Amino acid sequence: MNRPATIEDVARAAGVSRQTVSNVLNAPGVVREETRERVKEAIGRLGYAPHASARRLRTRRSSTLGIHLDPYAGGISGVVLDRFVHALTEHAGERGLRVMLYAARSPEEEIRRMADLRDGGDIDAVVITGTFHGDPRAQWLIEHSVPFVAFGRPWGDDDVGAPAHLWVDVDGAAGTAQATRHAIATAGPRVAFLGWPAGSGTGDDRERGWRESLPAGVEPVRLTSPENVATAREVAEQALSSEAFDALVCVSDSLAVGAHLAAVTSGRPGLLITGFDNTPAAEALGLSSIEQLPEQVARGALDLLLAGGRDVTLREIAPHEAHVLVEPRLVVR
Amino acid sequence: MNRPATIEDVARAAGVSRQTVSNVLNAPGVVREETRERVKEAIGRLGYAPHASARRLRTRRSSTLGIHLDPYAGGISGVVLDRFVHALTEHAGERGLRVMLYAARSPEEEIRRMADLRDGGDIDAVVITGTFHGDPRAQWLIEHSVPFVAFGRPWGDDDVGAPAHLWVDVDGAAGTAQATRHAIATAGPRVAFLGWPAGSGTGDDRERGWRESLPAGVEPVRLTSPENVATAREVAEQALSSEAFDALVCVSDSLAVGAHLAAVTSGRPGLLITGFDNTPAAEALGLSSIEQLPEQVARGALDLLLAGGRDVTLREIAPHEAHVLVEPRLVVR
Repeated sequence: MNRPATIEDVARAAGVSRQTVSNVLNAPGVVREETRERVKEAIGRLGYAPHASARRLRTRRSSTLGIHLDPYAGGISGVVLDRFVHALTEHAGERGLRVMLYAARSPEEEIRRMADLRDGGDIDAVVITGTFHGDPRAQWLIEHSVPFVAFGRPWGDDDVGAPAHLWVDVDGAAGTAQATRHAIATAGPRVAFLGWPAGSGTGDDRERGWRESLPAGVEPVRLTSPENVATAREVAEQALSSEAFDALVCVSDSLAVGAHLAAVTSGRPGLLITGFDNTPAAEALGLSSIEQLPEQVARGALDLLLAGGRDVTLREIAPHEAHVLVEPRLVVR
Repeated sequence: MNRPATIEDVARAAGVSRQTVSNVLNAPGVVREETRERVKEAIGRLGYAPHASARRLRTRRSSTLGIHLDPYAGGISGVVLDRFVHALTEHAGERGLRVMLYAARSPEEEIRRMADLRDGGDIDAVVITGTFHGDPRAQWLIEHSVPFVAFGRPWGDDDVGAPAHLWVDVDGAAGTAQATRHAIATAGPRVAFLGWPAGSGTGDDRERGWRESLPAGVEPVRLTSPENVATAREVAEQALSSEAFDALVCVSDSLAVGAHLAAVTSGRPGLLITGFDNTPAAEALGLSSIEQLPEQVARGALDLLLAGGRDVTLREIAPHEAHVLVEPRLVVR
């Protein structure tokens, strides 16, 4: 049969009325067991699927998550978010949920897109990424009672003890602490840090992991570059000629690639340099890097949203179950 | 108002019955103009959106495209497909279409997922990627009359003159021809090629562009490596010690990164090496590369699918309008 089976096809195949098939689907208790089995057998044999639109209209559930996809902006680390979307799609499918994408170029446009999808019944819940302090998206979602989970913590007063909403994140400080301890054991105690300008939640968190892992008595050497290979290379070249350090922990793979190029041209090709994000670029150059495990982040996001079941429900937030903090893993090369 | 406006809200605001609002939406000709204007004004003011599920059920159109997202497999070049999905989401949104993702680990599983989404009325059309000769997905889509477009040509007998279905692809041979001509002009006539093992449609096409652009009398030097940085590096190191060539055109950025590492350690850091895909890794290392322009591919896919309008319709295939071949662009660094 070329067209999808209809409820009439099932009724004819099972020798019952259309209403009986409908009862089996929606109120099975009112149908005799023998009849119920016959209808179920016909449904299975014909591959009948009640039309999604009808199902949705009845339940007002789309079983669909919305997620924003940024315009592609180049750069090395975008791959982490893409891996997260890949993993989310896979695990959502396993749990009977669909994933719908939407594009937006600003938080305000993102709110308009979320509102359209919510008003149209196209989505039940939203996954937001790239959260920042005072994020208007989170505020809008809370005000409009739309279930959501954020990849990225709210960066508020007490994210862990009293989180403002469901979130899953990677423990950046734990990652740079691993990298720093490994560098101390392998290369020596004077481990420098190449980070972004202060003020970004993610960057400051990663810096803290390094700073807190330095041995007492070691003067911290802190270099700064924006997320840009060429600038990182210049900054690292300058530092290699003026500062003494045994190894370099970087806030991102982009900065690590820049530092690696500087080390090669400065006659220190063996300098231990660690990146963050474990991107294909770091892998290709043989650089150690901290792996964010976006697959675990995706699973954590779904666990929070589904609260153990299949229903997407807005949960009462209780500390210790309102967030998932994934411990990243140092990949040594 | 915290909940979305309902048809009752509109009726109350306009001082008409629910049925009149419904008529304005579905049979405006039967409503007096003055009343119609009043209802429309109320709809606009309250931001009322007829429920998407109801709309879909009536029209059996979801205005949604399905696209498969592979499990993340690492590697440098996956970013091209991700950029394509980003661009598709953006341009689809501009044309009033939504994009739904699904995951599958084999063509057979992908067919099952497409069938589920089609049967459930969740999607109107499909975008498939990574096509190959005798692809069972294309066959299934044609047999079941599901509108679709492929990123990647069918690799059949006469893809361009008599295409088996709608497709959009990048002209790989035109890309490597550009790279070869540029290498000849810049470095000298002996341009070698580092390609994948023969037999893949994409790889053979890219090799052809190089081979046909070599000057008469130049003996072609053809190196082979699987899609792997380390192997490419070994192959290139071997060749650099035994063959004489002026430049190297590579079938992918992964192989170009491997060749670049070999050139640096073999004392030829200035060897002109060109990659394919213009990935962040090539950019970070300052390697020239051929840019696939996935944004143009996405636009081409939507143009084919929508055939100029907003409706996704299964088109009669006429040669010269059943495919889009995007000319890639050499990015010189």
